[in-house]
Amino acid sequence: MEKREGEGEGEEEQVVNPWTVSAKGGGKIDYDKLIDQFGCQRIDQSLVDRIHRLTSRAPHVFLRRGVFFAHRDLSEILDAYERGEKFYLYTGRGPSSEALHLGHLIPFMFTKYLQEAFKVPLVIQLTDDEKCMWKNLTVEESQRLARENAKDIIACGFDVTRTFIFSDFDYVGGAFYKNMVKVGKCVTYNKVVGIFGFTGEDNIGKVSFPPVQAVPSFPSSFPHLFGGQDNLRCLIPCAIDQDPYFRMTRDVAPRIGYQKPALIESSFFPAMQGETGKMSASDPNSAIYVTDSAKEIKNKINRYAFSGGQDSIEKHRELGANLEVDIPFKYLSFFLDDDAKLEEIRKEYGAGRMLTGEVKQLLIQVLTELVERHCRARAAVTDEVSFWR
Amino acid sequence: MEKREGEGEGEEEQVVNPWTVSAKGGGKIDYDKLIDQFGCQRIDQSLVDRIHRLTSRAPHVFLRRGVFFAHRDLSEILDAYERGEKFYLYTGRGPSSEALHLGHLIPFMFTKYLQEAFKVPLVIQLTDDEKCMWKNLTVEESQRLARENAKDIIACGFDVTRTFIFSDFDYVGGAFYKNMVKVGKCVTYNKVVGIFGFTGEDNIGKVSFPPVQAVPSFPSSFPHLFGGQDNLRCLIPCAIDQDPYFRMTRDVAPRIGYQKPALIESSFFPAMQGETGKMSASDPNSAIYVTDSAKEIKNKINRYAFSGGQDSIEKHRELGANLEVDIPFKYLSFFLDDDAKLEEIRKEYGAGRMLTGEVKQLLIQVLTELVERHCRARAAVTDEVSFWR
Repeated sequence: MEKREGEGEGEEEQVVNPWTVSAKGGGKIDYDKLIDQFGCQRIDQSLVDRIHRLTSRAPHVFLRRGVFFAHRDLSEILDAYERGEKFYLYTGRGPSSEALHLGHLIPFMFTKYLQEAFKVPLVIQLTDDEKCMWKNLTVEESQRLARENAKDIIACGFDVTRTFIFSDFDYVGGAFYKNMVKVGKCVTYNKVVGIFGFTGEDNIGKVSFPPVQAVPSFPSSFPHLFGGQDNLRCLIPCAIDQDPYFRMTRDVAPRIGYQKPALIESSFFPAMQGETGKMSASDPNSAIYVTDSAKEIKNKINRYAFSGGQDSIEKHRELGANLEVDIPFKYLSFFLDDDAKLEEIRKEYGAGRMLTGEVKQLLIQVLTELVERHCRARAAVTDEVSFWR
Repeated sequence: MEKREGEGEGEEEQVVNPWTVSAKGGGKIDYDKLIDQFGCQRIDQSLVDRIHRLTSRAPHVFLRRGVFFAHRDLSEILDAYERGEKFYLYTGRGPSSEALHLGHLIPFMFTKYLQEAFKVPLVIQLTDDEKCMWKNLTVEESQRLARENAKDIIACGFDVTRTFIFSDFDYVGGAFYKNMVKVGKCVTYNKVVGIFGFTGEDNIGKVSFPPVQAVPSFPSSFPHLFGGQDNLRCLIPCAIDQDPYFRMTRDVAPRIGYQKPALIESSFFPAMQGETGKMSASDPNSAIYVTDSAKEIKNKINRYAFSGGQDSIEKHRELGANLEVDIPFKYLSFFLDDDAKLEEIRKEYGAGRMLTGEVKQLLIQVLTELVERHCRARAAVTDEVSFWR
């Protein structure tokens, strides 16, 4: 579920799939174009308002501020919910690294909100099999990373009584495997080449994987959770680069007598070096990790967070900061809850009355608190967490 | 594990893979050429003698008469056995039909002999997942056929304490799935195209399947049977059309730190209409089924078993029967235990002193007894057989 690095850069068209996210000419991702290309819908204000009304609570920051910006069939999920029909949530992670960075937390923070707001069950898939193949990790190392990542995910605060976290190496089999075969029967090799860009030199493990990520969309893959509820609908919160898996899944679902999963999709979290940069596991300064100390967070932000401020104070006072490229402001728009405060910064910083240093100071404070809260929660997670399998 | 029908016939080169068995120009399979092409070894008399010596019992008819005619690393298995190291047997079946015919029984009859002679454990894979994909059966129907076929297999008389029969839909998962991923990582799509002839229009379920048939070759796929015996060697009795799966498996094994499985491979059992005919599920007269009544067996053999005898008695007395094409004689060479009796028929029938009718009469007797014995054994198999999972 991560980006493949260093591919597809340059002057070509933008490429967004589960392993490659690259904008045209090395610039910014054109999300409007992506929506057209993928055939999903934009989340508009009326949909946000409807969620507000249905859940009787303020929509999450990520929804209010358009981080989750696209969807498929979300309105149908809400229609059904309004009629009293429940649904379940499905999200996941490919465990390729020891520590998570802030970008990794976004789908989980948002999923936690959805679970609380709608009071619905949640399944979380850790694709250790995928990472074993794509990152050439051993089975054992992939499983170890899955267990470590599970602790960080649990630390996000999900409702223990309504959450099932599983690793593919542990859970594939039985009803889940039967659904994998049902999906695999309906998808030709040419089709996955079209969707995922596989080549003949890719291994058949990779070719076999799309059904593994597809089938948690179907309640019958979890007989111990949803036995007899074969029509329960599924809503998948994820970053939009995962859309190809679920386009495939939605294409197959009616052919095997299943409901199509609905989706709610986010844009990408920018790297410290700016939206055109990549968060890279090989460059720890490209992201804030949940394992970073307060001192590391302070240093990283002060040194590496790309500033949209001007070169000199005089020029800054005159022109103001370019908020379109300013990373401290972007990050605050993800993690600063207070709408009024954010609006004030937008105005003051944008007009040059506030300096980058002040914005960075506030960001350091917000992220240090977030990371410390996460670390405390993670420390409380034991190996015997009841909802991990 | 069955032939695909109606493909590759005509004037082309012979094609032998798990789904297509067709000889050049519609003639007989050239097994010498196959051995060269596949790179396996012929089983010679000294190897048969060695098995005789090591097991202190007469080699099975199928070994004495060259039905099992080719191998890979069988000598190494025997070397190890002589040093006191055990091995295990692995065979299987794709459950695509309700009733088995005599050809289906051959690997199981032979495997039973090997199990008894060497006193070794055995795993039997029922590839219901494969048949679900290749024969477009539902999951439920494939599983039902697997259960029915398991009863026929159990009726062959395996040692209950040393045999594990499993269906893929039931058993895939855990250590077995981990091995599937390990194998899948080592095989490119181009490679399986080369081995199995997949095309871009084949579904990815099919492309995913070769690792499923590969991994029972590795003891670590069965932790409950072979836990801690990761170096236990595996010997696979099968028809030679399955060789492509195990060429692939043997190629991968050392790359993932496993032993290569050894193989002992049979030629194909001919159809009633002759060696160039095909046993076809859509033509019940092309084979004797274990569900056929005594009357059906008699009628089928009398009416359809292709005779190498001459057109008139006079001509037959003069020229003798052509044993190369005579099906009653061929079938007796599989199922008549008595070497002296078979030799007598070879001489008398071949010289024209014995008529087709007499040979058919003996064959009817032999097969009626075999089928009746099978039916009695099958009737004694209950749904709760202890070694079925």
